[in-house]
Amino acid sequence: MTEAGSNRLERRKARTRSALVAAAQSFISAGRVNAPILEITQAADVGMGSFYNHFDSREDLFRVAVEEALDRYGATLDLLTRDLDDPAQAFTRSFRLSGRFHRLDPTLSKVLLNSWQTLVASDKGLAPRARRDIAAAAQAGRFEVRDLDMAMTIVAGSAVCLGQFLHEHPERDDATATDRVAQDLLRMFGLSAREAREIADLPLPVVEGLVLGAAVA
Amino acid sequence: MTEAGSNRLERRKARTRSALVAAAQSFISAGRVNAPILEITQAADVGMGSFYNHFDSREDLFRVAVEEALDRYGATLDLLTRDLDDPAQAFTRSFRLSGRFHRLDPTLSKVLLNSWQTLVASDKGLAPRARRDIAAAAQAGRFEVRDLDMAMTIVAGSAVCLGQFLHEHPERDDATATDRVAQDLLRMFGLSAREAREIADLPLPVVEGLVLGAAVA
Repeated sequence: MTEAGSNRLERRKARTRSALVAAAQSFISAGRVNAPILEITQAADVGMGSFYNHFDSREDLFRVAVEEALDRYGATLDLLTRDLDDPAQAFTRSFRLSGRFHRLDPTLSKVLLNSWQTLVASDKGLAPRARRDIAAAAQAGRFEVRDLDMAMTIVAGSAVCLGQFLHEHPERDDATATDRVAQDLLRMFGLSAREAREIADLPLPVVEGLVLGAAVA
Repeated sequence: MTEAGSNRLERRKARTRSALVAAAQSFISAGRVNAPILEITQAADVGMGSFYNHFDSREDLFRVAVEEALDRYGATLDLLTRDLDDPAQAFTRSFRLSGRFHRLDPTLSKVLLNSWQTLVASDKGLAPRARRDIAAAAQAGRFEVRDLDMAMTIVAGSAVCLGQFLHEHPERDDATATDRVAQDLLRMFGLSAREAREIADLPLPVVEGLVLGAAVA
């Protein structure tokens, strides 16, 4: 095969894979996590045979779909915090936006919460970004961090439990609850009560459609 | 039936149920969560028919076994902290002992971590006791707590993520990791860095067999 032909083939394969991942993401968001593979391939407009060139099973596709959605969400948070020089503020803004996500896309949120063990330890998505922000804040003398792994354990655990709490307590305002957790975490990182409150109360950028398949870019 | 006969029957039913729960706990601890019901009833020395008088399924029995194990563990922690007048110290000691539990009984720990959503929201076990200790410490002016639900969300999330971290990082010392998380949580609750370190470094009571089927009492 010529190089041009080989490149064309690679591009077509990449398009097929993207179409399957995007279809899986919209099925997940619609709560249809048990949809048959045939229906997913039809929605993606690819043949059944193509499916198995890329994925071993529906679970395999859905795992990739969740990982890539979370990574795109993380990239969106990066964009939404790039105007901030203070890594403490960047960490806080990302945490506060993430807490508001659970009710925007409850199905994806529940899928994420069910695979929290994988996501917390993943090198994609939100966990590595939170770690990066905390490390930068420690480096800049803004956070007191003795053990980054343990700080991440607390932050990740709080984020996961907060999502679960918000699903179980529809009567609680998600913004208030999230901002209080953020404020407590800032105090843990050594900020004064006053500064923690101020940073956790700053205006957030207006974000529309921070959901699967529609993340702003 | 006479009253005495009825009481005897009740006692026998309670003994059968206890025997099944204890057998399930030892199967869980041995990692045999897929053991057939027949084998569990044989280990409990009760008939197959008796099983269904008490439980709908193996999952039902295992759920009860986990709940009761956790509640007994909580009762043990109550005993191990009853010498402490300071609720901040009681909270810390319980947290530090709980963090040391994951490697003492890894199978049960993993079962617990897999059903964290239920356990974190349960009115039995460790969650209500942690909430009680935090509320008492706030009441006594030892902890600054603005929102008890959110404080519990952070503490429970940290406890769950810590357990997962310890399983994934066998190279990390569980006592050091746990005590650092405890120390960070104390700082979040408004203690000075110095006092947080002191309390998280206090000697712990010697506990043998804080494991399923062998909790000290």
